[in-house]
Amino acid sequence: MTVYGDYRSGNCYKVRLTLALLEIGHRWFNVDFLTGETRSDDFAVRNPARRIPMLERHDGRTLVESNAILYYLAHDSALVPDDDFDRARMLQWMFFEQHRHEPSLSVARLIHWYQGDPSERLEELVARQENARQALDIMEQTLSTQPFLAGETLTLADIALFAHTHIADQAGLLLLDWPHVVNWCGRIEEIPGFVSMQDIPDDTVPAAII
Amino acid sequence: MTVYGDYRSGNCYKVRLTLALLEIGHRWFNVDFLTGETRSDDFAVRNPARRIPMLERHDGRTLVESNAILYYLAHDSALVPDDDFDRARMLQWMFFEQHRHEPSLSVARLIHWYQGDPSERLEELVARQENARQALDIMEQTLSTQPFLAGETLTLADIALFAHTHIADQAGLLLLDWPHVVNWCGRIEEIPGFVSMQDIPDDTVPAAII
Repeated sequence: MTVYGDYRSGNCYKVRLTLALLEIGHRWFNVDFLTGETRSDDFAVRNPARRIPMLERHDGRTLVESNAILYYLAHDSALVPDDDFDRARMLQWMFFEQHRHEPSLSVARLIHWYQGDPSERLEELVARQENARQALDIMEQTLSTQPFLAGETLTLADIALFAHTHIADQAGLLLLDWPHVVNWCGRIEEIPGFVSMQDIPDDTVPAAII
Repeated sequence: MTVYGDYRSGNCYKVRLTLALLEIGHRWFNVDFLTGETRSDDFAVRNPARRIPMLERHDGRTLVESNAILYYLAHDSALVPDDDFDRARMLQWMFFEQHRHEPSLSVARLIHWYQGDPSERLEELVARQENARQALDIMEQTLSTQPFLAGETLTLADIALFAHTHIADQAGLLLLDWPHVVNWCGRIEEIPGFVSMQDIPDDTVPAAII
C-alpha cells in the first residue's frame, strides 16, 4: 500500500506511527501540506479528495480521514480492543479528537509555529488555545485514573490524541500544566517500535525543510 | 440502557434513529440543550461529562460522542459492514461528519434557527454556511454514483450525516441545490422503522417547547 502524507502533519504522523508499531510495509509518498501541493491539480489526479493523509491500496481503492485509516490498519491488532464497550470507548476518544482536540491544537500550531503569530490571527489563536486547554483538561482527568485513554492498554485512541498533544508547545501551550498527560506521553514513547515525529527518514525529507 | 438526550439535537437524533431502526429497548431521559441544563451541577451528578447524547448501561458505565454510541449500538448489525475496507469507508464518513459537517451545520442552525440571525454573529453564520456547502458538495459527488455513502446499503455513515443534512434549511441553506443529497434523504426516510426528528413522543416532550 501507499500512503500520501507530510511528516510534519499531526494527522499524517498518526498513520506513520501506527504503521511503525504494527510493522506494516508500505511506500510513503511525501507531499508538502504548507505550500498547497495537496490542493494542486497534479496531486488531484492521484488523490481526488486533495487531502492527506490518504491510503491507497494495491487495487487502487483509497481512504482518507486519518482515524479511519488507523482503524483500517489496526482493526485486527491489539490496538483495537475486542470487547464491544472498550472498542466504543476507544472510538469515543477518536471522535473527541477530530471534533474538539485536533481543530484547536492543529490550527493554533499553524498560527503560532508556522505563521509566527501574525497580528490579524491573534484573536483566533487565543480562542483555539482556550479550546485546546479544555480538551487537555478532559484528557488529564481520565489519565489521572488510568494509564491509557481507553483503559489499561495502548489503543488507537492514544495514537490519535498523542499526535497533536505531544507537540502542544508548537501551539503555544505549556504541556507541563497537565502532568498526567506528560506522563502518558512518556509511556507512549517507550512502546517498542515507537518512531518520533521529529525523526524524518533521510530519503524522503521534503525540500521545503532541508 | 438509558439515553440522555434532547429530541431537537441532531447528534441526539442520530442515536434515537439508530435505536428505532434496530428496535432496541431503552429509556430516554430528556434534557434541554438550549437552556444550559446539560451544564448544570444537578445533571453532572448523572453525567460528569455534562454532554449529550450520553448512553448509560445497566452496569452504570457511560459513553458520550454520538458516533461512538452509534457504533456501540450497531456493531453486530447490518448497519456496520463486515468487510474491513467497507467498514473503514463508513468510519471515514463518520469522522468527516464530526470534523467538517456537523461543526458547520449545527452551529449555523443554532445561529439561524434558534437565535434568529443576530447581527453580531452574521459573519460567523456566513463562514459556517460556506463550510457546510463544501461538505454537502463532497456528499453530492459520492451520492451521484452510489445510493448510500459507504456503498450499496445503508450504514451508520448515512445515519450520522442524515441528522444535520435533512434539516439544512434550519441552517439557512436550500437543500434542493444538492439533488442527489435530496434523493438520498428520501431513501433513508423510506427505510422500515424510520422515525422523523419532528415526531417527538408525547410523554417526553420537554417543557421548553410545549
